[in-house]
Amino acid sequence: MLRTDDLMNGYHILQDTDFFCFGIDAVLLSHYPALKAGDRVMDLGTGFAPIPLIMHAEARRQGLVPGFKITGLELQERPAEIAARSVAENHLSDEIEIVRGDIREAEELFGPASFSLVTCNPPYMPAGDGIKSADEARAIARTEIRCTLEDVIRTASALLKMRGRFAMIHRPFRLPEIMACLTKYHLEPKRMRMVHPAADTEPSMVLIESVKGGRPRLAVDPPLIVYNKDRTYTEEIYKIYGWNPVSGGDSHRQS
Amino acid sequence: MLRTDDLMNGYHILQDTDFFCFGIDAVLLSHYPALKAGDRVMDLGTGFAPIPLIMHAEARRQGLVPGFKITGLELQERPAEIAARSVAENHLSDEIEIVRGDIREAEELFGPASFSLVTCNPPYMPAGDGIKSADEARAIARTEIRCTLEDVIRTASALLKMRGRFAMIHRPFRLPEIMACLTKYHLEPKRMRMVHPAADTEPSMVLIESVKGGRPRLAVDPPLIVYNKDRTYTEEIYKIYGWNPVSGGDSHRQS
Repeated sequence: MLRTDDLMNGYHILQDTDFFCFGIDAVLLSHYPALKAGDRVMDLGTGFAPIPLIMHAEARRQGLVPGFKITGLELQERPAEIAARSVAENHLSDEIEIVRGDIREAEELFGPASFSLVTCNPPYMPAGDGIKSADEARAIARTEIRCTLEDVIRTASALLKMRGRFAMIHRPFRLPEIMACLTKYHLEPKRMRMVHPAADTEPSMVLIESVKGGRPRLAVDPPLIVYNKDRTYTEEIYKIYGWNPVSGGDSHRQS
Repeated sequence: MLRTDDLMNGYHILQDTDFFCFGIDAVLLSHYPALKAGDRVMDLGTGFAPIPLIMHAEARRQGLVPGFKITGLELQERPAEIAARSVAENHLSDEIEIVRGDIREAEELFGPASFSLVTCNPPYMPAGDGIKSADEARAIARTEIRCTLEDVIRTASALLKMRGRFAMIHRPFRLPEIMACLTKYHLEPKRMRMVHPAADTEPSMVLIESVKGGRPRLAVDPPLIVYNKDRTYTEEIYKIYGWNPVSGGDSHRQS
């Protein structure tokens, strides 16, 4: 089913709910890296392009538009097609480009050192691990069937200019592997933030920003807490989503 | 100046304040790894032996004593001498052994695969980085002059049996290097906990427990918060120190 969601930032997004829908991870990742004027951004495995759309709105809010270009690369045909439609409907075709293609062939497609910022919300589960999704589209999005963590990191490094940034969200249980792999491809982890469902729980996600050729020194941010004790969202989550807690906005309402 | 502190666990500790005194890091590390009956523990760079003394008291509380043996290895003569005196005064000479020696020669001294648990509160600062301590004893304790992170990790791995645990406390800014180095020496990070001065601040320390030959999967614990908003210690810190918040105990009082 094709659904339209208001992103509450001036843009809307189309998603086919028979495939998958973006979650809080895409929202948090879109807001994690500091944006710069003239950035050339690549979002690897963009799906229905939530990250390009949210990040572009944020760049606009910061006065970096026009001139802030984002490319979304997506392997699967229907998500790529729908993402391009969302971009066109939001009149962003000059600023956001959706390309259908394989992450493992991205360096050939775009050339090396062609971006200043790469983002990725990759499949979290190693192949052969975790719960398998019944259908192929979801499985590709969630499990490392078509591309592994190393494919993503190798590609990000190849696509980035020196001093370019790579921002990723992932599961904390894979952190040692993530750090070893980033270091292997000269993407030095410079900032990290754990995302905790509540203040006293284990983190469910981790945001990491690396710099190509950066000098070793990691800054760990204060924890990002999603829910208050009464299960309402924390003020910081409201702020990231751009909601107004008083009016009780809902970014996922049908439009 | 030689000072005696009550550890509030039935033991006391002697420290020469002209050298250094143990801090909260040693206390947190002592309580981080789960202890097992029959453990053979090595504390690398033990100083005045706070970790052996605190951990032994905890082992006693858990009913693992006698039979819970700890060795503390210390490079510097006077701390090693005073540590041995503390052990003797606490009547623990059958359970805790203090050895004067170099971490880099520990494998020769003790033989490979001779311990089930290794702990280390190492110097945090790379040589040539950070503030230099005016005197040599402090400098050796704080800066990687006499042993580097890699020396510590290589030695821990060599001293551990397969499935043995290595527990370390360090600074979060060195996490990528720590994880890469642990993995290199087959010490798989299995548990990690960030220590934050307050709930909304960056972490100042990180506790990591690795397992020799473990399968990759890191569990990240909820954050450990040291201070409440009113600058009193949190309940968890009171519990770790074994203080009774009501009576307002102080583990560092003169005895």
